[in-house]
Amino acid sequence: MKKVNKITFIGIGLINSSLARDLKGKGFYKTSSAFSRTKKTRNKLRKLNIVDIVEESYESAVRDADIVIVGVPVAAFTSVIKKITPYLKEDAIITDVGSVKKSLITIAKNSLPKEIDFIPGHPIAGTENSGPESGFKGLFKNGYCILTPGANIRKESLNIIIRMWNITGMKVDIMDPEYHDMVLAITSHIPHIIAYSIVGTVSNLEKSIKKEVIKYAASGFKDFTRIAASDPVMWRDILISNKKSILDMLSIFKKDLANLENAIKREDSKFLDNLFSRTRLIRKKINK
Amino acid sequence: MKKVNKITFIGIGLINSSLARDLKGKGFYKTSSAFSRTKKTRNKLRKLNIVDIVEESYESAVRDADIVIVGVPVAAFTSVIKKITPYLKEDAIITDVGSVKKSLITIAKNSLPKEIDFIPGHPIAGTENSGPESGFKGLFKNGYCILTPGANIRKESLNIIIRMWNITGMKVDIMDPEYHDMVLAITSHIPHIIAYSIVGTVSNLEKSIKKEVIKYAASGFKDFTRIAASDPVMWRDILISNKKSILDMLSIFKKDLANLENAIKREDSKFLDNLFSRTRLIRKKINK
Repeated sequence: MKKVNKITFIGIGLINSSLARDLKGKGFYKTSSAFSRTKKTRNKLRKLNIVDIVEESYESAVRDADIVIVGVPVAAFTSVIKKITPYLKEDAIITDVGSVKKSLITIAKNSLPKEIDFIPGHPIAGTENSGPESGFKGLFKNGYCILTPGANIRKESLNIIIRMWNITGMKVDIMDPEYHDMVLAITSHIPHIIAYSIVGTVSNLEKSIKKEVIKYAASGFKDFTRIAASDPVMWRDILISNKKSILDMLSIFKKDLANLENAIKREDSKFLDNLFSRTRLIRKKINK
Repeated sequence: MKKVNKITFIGIGLINSSLARDLKGKGFYKTSSAFSRTKKTRNKLRKLNIVDIVEESYESAVRDADIVIVGVPVAAFTSVIKKITPYLKEDAIITDVGSVKKSLITIAKNSLPKEIDFIPGHPIAGTENSGPESGFKGLFKNGYCILTPGANIRKESLNIIIRMWNITGMKVDIMDPEYHDMVLAITSHIPHIIAYSIVGTVSNLEKSIKKEVIKYAASGFKDFTRIAASDPVMWRDILISNKKSILDMLSIFKKDLANLENAIKREDSKFLDNLFSRTRLIRKKINK
């Protein structure tokens, strides 16, 4: 397999910093570099000591890199690709770690030279915390990373990216980008929308009752607040760029919620028994 | 303070069995008994060895009991109260552990003799598992128990029930039952409805995509499946008996969700930034 001399992280939040931690000292690369837009993050990163060099520009970060891993909010992706393209090694591999794939492929197709292999990636892992200090070794262990490569990339490039995720303990699945975006709308984007919405409802309540809701949050609501504490900019971008799949699924969800609401209204025990027993089965499948 | 000779658990699922475990050997009572409607549960209970006697009838279970703790689904409450009333000690204290308070008070008022003190209780704790084998010591530790007693009960009875929950590590708050039902609609009942609904949406998807959703459930959806795995009968009863507060709050939630949906439709970054930053603050308050 091709040797990886230099690996570069562009943007270094929860995911990229966890990946840097997992890859360090594993012999996957000879040197690693990173660049982050803000001086504050670059300084944090230097203290963490998880990459060999924290660079002061896109240019020096990506120069001679065999792999560039872009870990920035979706809306920043276009600008990052434009900024790094002039300095990329001719056979560099570009990959990313974002929760939406189709829109990135369009951006990459319009900006990257043909010789560059773009291999979109989505390691399904995370916490509600953000920033390089929130990352940790082992975040990816036993999870899945979905890759959505185009047909024209070099097989070897794909194998290198698969190997990279395998080192972190992830299994890798290859998927069509549109299908990825639809599945993720259901498993992740809609749950986030709903959690954001209901926690938003609570934040609009008058002060006294808001205080009680926060005090007695233990059962149910607390899980929603954890989800709704996720990085605002990242999620704003995800929801906008996966708008179509999300709005499609949301309209099904709204119909189902209206049915459940009506069942409660007419006190339809049978409907409720049936639904609640079905949902319990889904949980059993996930635990396996 | 008045001596508690005998304490009785009627219905022994997650909550009552955890309470029995917590109180055992703490000197709170001299003897304890329990009764459950099904032979299967009574046999399980005998093996667990968390009460002194598992009785074969309501009558023998509650005879001479100073405190009777009813832990059955809301819809079964009326029938249980009717069945135990003829055998209650004249100054017995009745309490419960359910998630809805107002409807129980009406039931108790219609059925219980005036000398009996009914002190509705709701220990805010739980897991998605049910049955006496799912209970455990320490479930209540550091949580809140809300009591919603009427004005005419003996002060001493209230103090005994407060002491009982304090032994489990709970802080006790006294609250108006209607206010309790409204706060719980928000913190617990609505989150359960939403989780049930979205997991139900997934259970209706065609087989192939359902398989993928279950496989990649890690981010967001998994939390919903945990909530939606809660005991079906218990939740059916809660939702029906707290219908009014739930439907009121659900209509606010639906409006807020429609606003969020429209913001995604028109790609309104500002709206999303603002909402997602507000919801993150709520989480910070809960962590404190």
